[in-house]
Amino acid sequence: MSQSFDIAVIGATGTVGETLVQLLEERDFPVDSLYLLASSESAGSSLPFKGRNLRVRDVADFDFSQVTLAFFAAGEAVTRSFAERAQVAGCSLIDLSGALTLDKAPCLVPEANAGALQGLTRPYSLTSPSASAVALACVLAPLANQLGLRHVTVTACLAVSSLGRQGVKELARQTAELLNARPLVSRFFDRQIAFNLLAQSGDPDSEGHAALERRMAAEIKQLLGQPALSVAATCALAPVFFGDSFSVSLQVEGDVDLPAVLELLRTAPGVELVEEGDYPTAVGDAVGQDAIYVGRVRRGIDGPRELNLWIASDNVRKGAALNAVQSAELLIKHYL
Amino acid sequence: MSQSFDIAVIGATGTVGETLVQLLEERDFPVDSLYLLASSESAGSSLPFKGRNLRVRDVADFDFSQVTLAFFAAGEAVTRSFAERAQVAGCSLIDLSGALTLDKAPCLVPEANAGALQGLTRPYSLTSPSASAVALACVLAPLANQLGLRHVTVTACLAVSSLGRQGVKELARQTAELLNARPLVSRFFDRQIAFNLLAQSGDPDSEGHAALERRMAAEIKQLLGQPALSVAATCALAPVFFGDSFSVSLQVEGDVDLPAVLELLRTAPGVELVEEGDYPTAVGDAVGQDAIYVGRVRRGIDGPRELNLWIASDNVRKGAALNAVQSAELLIKHYL
Ligand SMILES: NC(=O)c1ccc[n+]([C@@H]2O[C@H](COP(=O)([O-])OP(=O)(O)OC[C@H]3O[C@@H](n4cnc5c(N)ncnc54)[C@H](OP(=O)(O)O)[C@@H]3O)[C@@H](O)[C@H]2O)c1
Ligand SMILES: NC(=O)c1ccc[n+]([C@@H]2O[C@H](COP(=O)([O-])OP(=O)(O)OC[C@H]3O[C@@H](n4cnc5c(N)ncnc54)[C@H](OP(=O)(O)O)[C@@H]3O)[C@@H](O)[C@H]2O)c1
Repeated sequence: MSQSFDIAVIGATGTVGETLVQLLEERDFPVDSLYLLASSESAGSSLPFKGRNLRVRDVADFDFSQVTLAFFAAGEAVTRSFAERAQVAGCSLIDLSGALTLDKAPCLVPEANAGALQGLTRPYSLTSPSASAVALACVLAPLANQLGLRHVTVTACLAVSSLGRQGVKELARQTAELLNARPLVSRFFDRQIAFNLLAQSGDPDSEGHAALERRMAAEIKQLLGQPALSVAATCALAPVFFGDSFSVSLQVEGDVDLPAVLELLRTAPGVELVEEGDYPTAVGDAVGQDAIYVGRVRRGIDGPRELNLWIASDNVRKGAALNAVQSAELLIKHYL
Repeated sequence: MSQSFDIAVIGATGTVGETLVQLLEERDFPVDSLYLLASSESAGSSLPFKGRNLRVRDVADFDFSQVTLAFFAAGEAVTRSFAERAQVAGCSLIDLSGALTLDKAPCLVPEANAGALQGLTRPYSLTSPSASAVALACVLAPLANQLGLRHVTVTACLAVSSLGRQGVKELARQTAELLNARPLVSRFFDRQIAFNLLAQSGDPDSEGHAALERRMAAEIKQLLGQPALSVAATCALAPVFFGDSFSVSLQVEGDVDLPAVLELLRTAPGVELVEEGDYPTAVGDAVGQDAIYVGRVRRGIDGPRELNLWIASDNVRKGAALNAVQSAELLIKHYL
């Protein structure tokens, strides 16, 4: 008789939450009772799970002692309001919002740093990192030793779904307005996103970095176990509904051994290498898939100590929901 | 009495050529006779210039001895076929296709390297560099001394118009098909560009670099007069009609003096600095403008010897047509 668990998904009606619930079903996660939580606005609606319709409830009224594990996928404010209540009730949690500090809730990407769970104590508190960090960690972790990473420069062209349902809705609306030659009034974004690129996602701090850029840099270092690694991150928003794209340049210690790098990527867990001559795209390859796609793997034009590559990933699935579920799978297997 | 010149525009019916002809008029370029040239397909059509309609002619039948200066904006093959004929006829030329080698036809971006004209002999043969190199040169030239540039990492998210009329048409067609939920068959691009990003523009060579990436890297070095500068370039295609975006990371010799950098950018010719907190976008700022827009100017998250910035530029106007016309203005002022 195998064990099963009582689980809560906070933000179950959202872009990530819905996918997360689907993945619990798809992957046959050992769920006993599943509690779908959201704000009072969605409370009362229902969502399908294993052939039944489950009622969505207001997280504000939830008694966390009913569950062993809670996924927090409802934004930073919700995590800040309810994470402690969950922990006090003895509930382990996996947070997708980035609201918790990485020393208290370490990042986990099972392909990159499964060992991070060792030494943690119950109730567990984990961060499923930003979609960008998940993608980069999957690709860089298997390469890090071989390459001797010194500096990572990454430009992330994020899908509008990285900002949830409203981002998706607004790109669709703006695009339709423009194609119909109607004057554009921007709503959710502060300017035109359709047929344009926005140079940042979220407000910059006093040094010019957006919170997401700092978060991603810190997460990558923790995931690779290289606190001294230097990371330059630019997160832009692209007029793409689903799927993030990353242009990555790595500065490394010695001359890049390209065949060795390619062989490592071919066998890396959770990674799909798109071979020479071809290249991966967010929509054409990554969306709907579990793997992180990598291609355009090449040395620098001017230097053998540089490796360039392009990564495409499904931000909602692999970047968020799947990574959280895989983390939970690891947790229940060894620790819960 | 001021001098005026007989001029030819090859590719006059194209995206760049049309803008170039408009700019000759707008800027009151001292044109005597203007010859509009294209392929036999467009020969016979006409284009407006200074209140008259000028006939488009087939370049194959053109006698280059009739003109002092020719703009080549019809692709590499056309430059390769006709540049020599022009030169033999004593005609100076400004090539926008990148078909000529940089030792024979040096790059010119007047804001960056006006001095490059010195020592050249008649008939002049110049390259108006790729739109990416124009944008980067305008921003980096005024900073190069102050910073002590070591390494430039650039990810260019190019508009589909960088591939001319067909690129624009195909993005519009694909977007409409998808919004109407019709199945997508890609034509001009090898896959879906609408709501997607393509990791490369043009085929990669045996080392994985696209010709445009190598061209841009070589041009930047020549424009900055730093043949030993190391450049990493990735040119992707974005679902944007007009306007290129560049995410740039610079590695420099000493700690970046940010106030000094900002002051240099504020006064740099041809550059518009978007101040702290805001950021430039291709469509919102650059398109239709003469300036290159720069913003998000910040030091590295992990290192004071790094400078990150974001550049937006009108690829067709400043990146091609305007730079060529400005180059011609310099040429006629001092040399022709
Ligand atoms: N989208 C991505 O690519 C991605 C990737 C990695 C991590 N994440 C993180 O995942 C989380 C969810 O993102 P999303 O993209 O799914 O956003 P979303 O589509 O906007 O969904 C937001 C979800 O949060 C719920 N929510 C909002 N305010 C709430 C409140 N006060 N109390 C309870 N529930 C509330 C919403 O419930 P209602 O239906 O009641 O409004 C909805 O279920 C965010 O923290 C985000 O940073 C997202
Ligand atoms: N678009 C940009 O952002 C950009 C930026 C920098 C440099 N450039 C360069 O500028 C050049 C033109 O690009 P574009 O974007 O304007 O392309 P385009 O919109 O496709 O226009 C191509 C032009 O070239 C002419 N042409 C094509 N084949 C010809 C032939 N065999 N003989 C004579 N004329 C021919 C076309 O004339 P027909 O009407 O007869 O077909 C048309 O005028 C290219 O070399 C490109 O690399 C473009």
